[in-house]
Amino acid sequence: MKKVAIVGAGQSRYGDFPDKGIKELFFEAYKDMISSVDNGIDPKSIESAYIGNLGSGGFQLGNMSALVTEYCGLTHLNTMRIENACASGGYAIIAAAMDVLSGAHEVVLAGGVEKMTDVSGMKQKYWLGVSGDTEYERLAGTTFAGLYALMAQRHMHEFGTKREQLSMVAVKNHKNGAQNPKAQFQREITMEQALKGPIVAHPLNLFDCCSTTDGASALIICDADMAKKYTDTPVYVAGFGGASDFLAIHDRVSTVALEGTKRAAAAAYKMSGLSPKDIQTAEVHDCFTIAELLAYEDLGFCEKGKGGQYMEEGHTKLDGDRPVNASGGLKSKGHPIGSTGTGMAYEMFNQLRGTIQKPARQVKGAEVGLIHNVGGSGGTVAVSILRR
Amino acid sequence: MKKVAIVGAGQSRYGDFPDKGIKELFFEAYKDMISSVDNGIDPKSIESAYIGNLGSGGFQLGNMSALVTEYCGLTHLNTMRIENACASGGYAIIAAAMDVLSGAHEVVLAGGVEKMTDVSGMKQKYWLGVSGDTEYERLAGTTFAGLYALMAQRHMHEFGTKREQLSMVAVKNHKNGAQNPKAQFQREITMEQALKGPIVAHPLNLFDCCSTTDGASALIICDADMAKKYTDTPVYVAGFGGASDFLAIHDRVSTVALEGTKRAAAAAYKMSGLSPKDIQTAEVHDCFTIAELLAYEDLGFCEKGKGGQYMEEGHTKLDGDRPVNASGGLKSKGHPIGSTGTGMAYEMFNQLRGTIQKPARQVKGAEVGLIHNVGGSGGTVAVSILRR
Repeated sequence: MKKVAIVGAGQSRYGDFPDKGIKELFFEAYKDMISSVDNGIDPKSIESAYIGNLGSGGFQLGNMSALVTEYCGLTHLNTMRIENACASGGYAIIAAAMDVLSGAHEVVLAGGVEKMTDVSGMKQKYWLGVSGDTEYERLAGTTFAGLYALMAQRHMHEFGTKREQLSMVAVKNHKNGAQNPKAQFQREITMEQALKGPIVAHPLNLFDCCSTTDGASALIICDADMAKKYTDTPVYVAGFGGASDFLAIHDRVSTVALEGTKRAAAAAYKMSGLSPKDIQTAEVHDCFTIAELLAYEDLGFCEKGKGGQYMEEGHTKLDGDRPVNASGGLKSKGHPIGSTGTGMAYEMFNQLRGTIQKPARQVKGAEVGLIHNVGGSGGTVAVSILRR
Repeated sequence: MKKVAIVGAGQSRYGDFPDKGIKELFFEAYKDMISSVDNGIDPKSIESAYIGNLGSGGFQLGNMSALVTEYCGLTHLNTMRIENACASGGYAIIAAAMDVLSGAHEVVLAGGVEKMTDVSGMKQKYWLGVSGDTEYERLAGTTFAGLYALMAQRHMHEFGTKREQLSMVAVKNHKNGAQNPKAQFQREITMEQALKGPIVAHPLNLFDCCSTTDGASALIICDADMAKKYTDTPVYVAGFGGASDFLAIHDRVSTVALEGTKRAAAAAYKMSGLSPKDIQTAEVHDCFTIAELLAYEDLGFCEKGKGGQYMEEGHTKLDGDRPVNASGGLKSKGHPIGSTGTGMAYEMFNQLRGTIQKPARQVKGAEVGLIHNVGGSGGTVAVSILRR
């Protein structure tokens, strides 16, 4: 099988921007991406574009992949909007990689954008609730915080996972995000703050939950054979996998594991010829703190049920043996839905090249990293393994 | 380059079904697709699925590709929702073909579904308007009928296209649709009716406009080398192309041509090694009658400006030398947005295999057919060329 490489990556600031819509946000990421290509790139050479997006800012629901790329001056593209809820960006990467591997196009853009703030509360609530199984979950009154709270309760019950271990995820990710100039919340929080946040859905409190964020990100993906034309240090997509599961958690074989994560990771490991022990750093989908512990287990970083202990032992801290969410994660960097997956790849591109802006956040010497992006409460999951 | 083939195709009835949501509609197409595979297929062999959809029935906005495939018993898929307004289905075919060509998966589903009736009028209006350039078009008060009316006016002004020539498209497509047991409107209309319909946006009247439709369709696409395992008469995807353009028609180089159609067709012709003269039959995007005339021209079936004359000369009638919209087209078969592109492929699969249900509508001896699917007023266009 051919291989593909990432040769450029850009990201907008993540945050709350009343003066920016989806066009402006995406353009910010696009400009950053173009300027990141070491040897330069002619935008006309981009032939195809896959844009992850859930709600289009409540403004432009259809055809938005053509609209945001048109705003960047590109009107000649094979472009598609990819929507898999919060995993839209992760799947945009898979679609772009397949496009290049198919031989249909040589230089392809994978990106994502979401405008979540400054739209009416009704719409926000509507968008977010609509990615579960509406008939059995949303109309019955559950929210995503509620669904992940159920998983957290059960994990505590079955495995003795501690409340403190959840908060450790939040403290770690805020510590990392404090060093990320593009993060939404660039500040640390204390263990005491993390434990005492107002309850959102027991046992999850405010500091267990990610935020509502505006943001965009974009990558240039091309055939590995032509990557050196653009940069001496491409980052290769060694493997990828996407997997679905029942949307409603009551339908699943387990409420303490995401089968989608296991299957997507298995596909990515198989394609890359790598295994969990080879993963030196990862960006995982910490929409809620419990989700990061589940990811440790389902990606094979530790045994099922040991996620809390794995966190507590410090493996995933910046100075641990396998730093996770060095960017700050969804928790601190922010979670602009459609952009989250490609934003993870932006981070990993820079981590593996050693080009993180602030050295305090640079993972030392990592050559292999994994990105993990979850849609809904696990109905869709995308995993990619990147390699320097 | 490898080749891919379609080995099964299914479609639900198109129409107004108060008792069916997106899950039920898609399952109807899925069942039909599975039973269409001559030598049978184990659903577990389907590895990946691309589902075209715009509005998800106003019910389930996120993660719906996983939801509708879960309802068919498939929870192990690399699945993505593809959204490019009315061209969503046409792009789902391109995404599925690339997936197979990439070597990532061997057996892939491309489908589409839309639930448009029995949702609130506000939502319908909102969905449909949102696929133009909202800032410059929707918020200024234009509708899609209005945009195509502008194109029709200009086409009449520049080329002398006649009102009667527009109506001939409607009469032809209703005549074909009357023979299609899955069409929304299975009845003929007279030239007098077509000319005297109530005005929607001058010069377009009711009979120049397609309808609001519920429906779904699904295809099985696999590597051409393994196609004979499933059927002795696969239909090959000889070429495909997707192309974008400015969403707002005032930004475009011409208001009497869709550059997206020209570019997408050029890519599909190039990949297939075929040219317009090789196309024996086509399903084109007749969301409005003028759109079918533009398609004749932009796909290269006749010269620019001669679309009305080409219609009048009868080339595209069922007994003409190049039948177009033998299914009844969007006009009579119906236009369930996300399903329209894959529904065209369902029709062409049966036309090229000679398995059209009613012989009266069977195009005789065609070996090469083209399908043409437009998003918005031309912001995105997908073209595929199928070959027996």
